[in-house]
Amino acid sequence: MRNLKVCMAYNGAAYHGFQRQDNAVTVQGTVEKALKEMFKKEIGITGCSRTDTGVHARCFYFNVFIDNAIPCENFIRGMNTLLPQDIALISCEEVDESFHARYNTKSKEYIYRICNTKQRNVFEQNLSLWFPYKLDAEFMNEKAQLFVGTHDFAGFCRADAKQYLKSTVRTVYSFNVRRNGDFVEFTISGDGFLYNMVRILVGTLVDMNDGRKSDEEILNALRSGDRTLSGKTLSPCGLYLNKVEY
Amino acid sequence: MRNLKVCMAYNGAAYHGFQRQDNAVTVQGTVEKALKEMFKKEIGITGCSRTDTGVHARCFYFNVFIDNAIPCENFIRGMNTLLPQDIALISCEEVDESFHARYNTKSKEYIYRICNTKQRNVFEQNLSLWFPYKLDAEFMNEKAQLFVGTHDFAGFCRADAKQYLKSTVRTVYSFNVRRNGDFVEFTISGDGFLYNMVRILVGTLVDMNDGRKSDEEILNALRSGDRTLSGKTLSPCGLYLNKVEY
Repeated sequence: MRNLKVCMAYNGAAYHGFQRQDNAVTVQGTVEKALKEMFKKEIGITGCSRTDTGVHARCFYFNVFIDNAIPCENFIRGMNTLLPQDIALISCEEVDESFHARYNTKSKEYIYRICNTKQRNVFEQNLSLWFPYKLDAEFMNEKAQLFVGTHDFAGFCRADAKQYLKSTVRTVYSFNVRRNGDFVEFTISGDGFLYNMVRILVGTLVDMNDGRKSDEEILNALRSGDRTLSGKTLSPCGLYLNKVEY
Repeated sequence: MRNLKVCMAYNGAAYHGFQRQDNAVTVQGTVEKALKEMFKKEIGITGCSRTDTGVHARCFYFNVFIDNAIPCENFIRGMNTLLPQDIALISCEEVDESFHARYNTKSKEYIYRICNTKQRNVFEQNLSLWFPYKLDAEFMNEKAQLFVGTHDFAGFCRADAKQYLKSTVRTVYSFNVRRNGDFVEFTISGDGFLYNMVRILVGTLVDMNDGRKSDEEILNALRSGDRTLSGKTLSPCGLYLNKVEY
């Protein structure tokens, strides 16, 4: 069996997240359907992450075992013909059979995009969060540094998801906020992220920008693990899995 | 009656062009439906141009006569609440009653966007033309200068549309091609454009890039008005009305 490591991009707007579900259209289900069409049998893939409904990926890795000698280039071309327009395989390489797309990740980088214009941008539907009020990227960049390092992020995780986790301690390697024309982009990298964590962290920075949350409250949320002290959970439409390192 | 000059942006993917039609969803029809909802009566608008099915606008002007004292700011806010997500009013000002959005245009600028990546960009569906082969922006920029100036563009107009026109002579003020990361952008401004003219001009430059059309053939198409000598008509999805000057 060959183990293929595949980088894929998708626009998550039409999908109930990555992970296969019986009664919903998901990215995994759609890719596996294309694999079945191509190889005439059931083939499962292993993804690097379980992105939520509506979340996008610029470079999402999965690995897949196939017993077929098809060259990587032809595999990509064939699959992209079978996949819908909002999913595309970008690159593919054969790797050691021990490679596991989820267990072997060293770091992940997410980007959250806010479109900061007075009127909505009609070309950004489902691709960024529209926020028409003043955003100070420099101020938020400074506050973002509060989260860098190893912390218990229990207060920045969807409250009902904690019970399934062994630990809510994660390490954020870097967290930068910068303005790029009409957009404010939040780039965060870390060893892993809890359920809704990036959307809550960015929502917290926006609440701090608006003066609705203070440094003290946020440090308290980090110490106590109390979800009610951190900021709002922003829409998934602005979130992109941007990079994965192995 | 007040005459309002309104700038509007729209994603044309879901519309059968700007102009009102009885049995198709158009931008004009959608805006007039919102006006009716807002003012409880039929109000017609006059657009600066008749964009085709699937063509986008970043700044499309229309004017509208209303007998209501609503401030411009509130007019925009109210209309944007009633309009679908892919149409947005951007700005509005009260102008002299003699102002006519179509007759008073001095120049229009269109941009054509090609996404020049090996695999399709899943975030650019309906927003640019995907072209995976080599494009030399500098070469095409040089060739684009052949079209600058006053010419009879009969050979660069949809063949069956010529019979309705008094003249096929138009002046192109500037035509620039430049690479912007993964994108190649064609920016053309002129006093007016024939039916499909921008899409045929850009298609002609792409054909020249590919070595399928020579300078001689193109000069011949300009001289003779023979549509069979010019290049292919590209998809509307890459075309944006970008600016209108009065």
